[in-house]
Amino acid sequence: MQSFRAVVTVRLKDSILDPAGEATEGVLKHMGFAVQGVRIGRHIQVTLEAEDAKAARRAVERMAHDLLANPVMEDYDVEVLS
Amino acid sequence: MQSFRAVVTVRLKDSILDPAGEATEGVLKHMGFAVQGVRIGRHIQVTLEAEDAKAARRAVERMAHDLLANPVMEDYDVEVLS
Repeated sequence: MQSFRAVVTVRLKDSILDPAGEATEGVLKHMGFAVQGVRIGRHIQVTLEAEDAKAARRAVERMAHDLLANPVMEDYDVEVLS
Repeated sequence: MQSFRAVVTVRLKDSILDPAGEATEGVLKHMGFAVQGVRIGRHIQVTLEAEDAKAARRAVERMAHDLLANPVMEDYDVEVLS
């Protein structure tokens, strides 16, 4: 077994409202920035043990689908770093 | 002025506790995953207007430092995508 690091990036789907993003956009505009939109997602770093990089990716894909993201409202990407 | 998309990735510094990450790690272990650590940060997409890519990066660096991240507890990266 080897140790792997992976990142799961979770983003709200375009059709889903993001009230925190809208609030942040409002503050940035108030601060004088020419901002047109803000969407806030999650950047989740996972360290895990697996036989090889392929098995690590498979495990993290399952973690993302079953727990880390809500596939109804969110999209996610998995990247295995090492 | 052109429109640019940027991503600010915000991560808790290693020395800062991450209770949400620890709770997630516990659930993943309970689900049978050989996970060793979970850290939860933010993935913030910003669209903005700027003269050029260099000005866009400068503006987003300021947004990150002044509002999007807490530099005492968090590190951040800025990536200008287009």
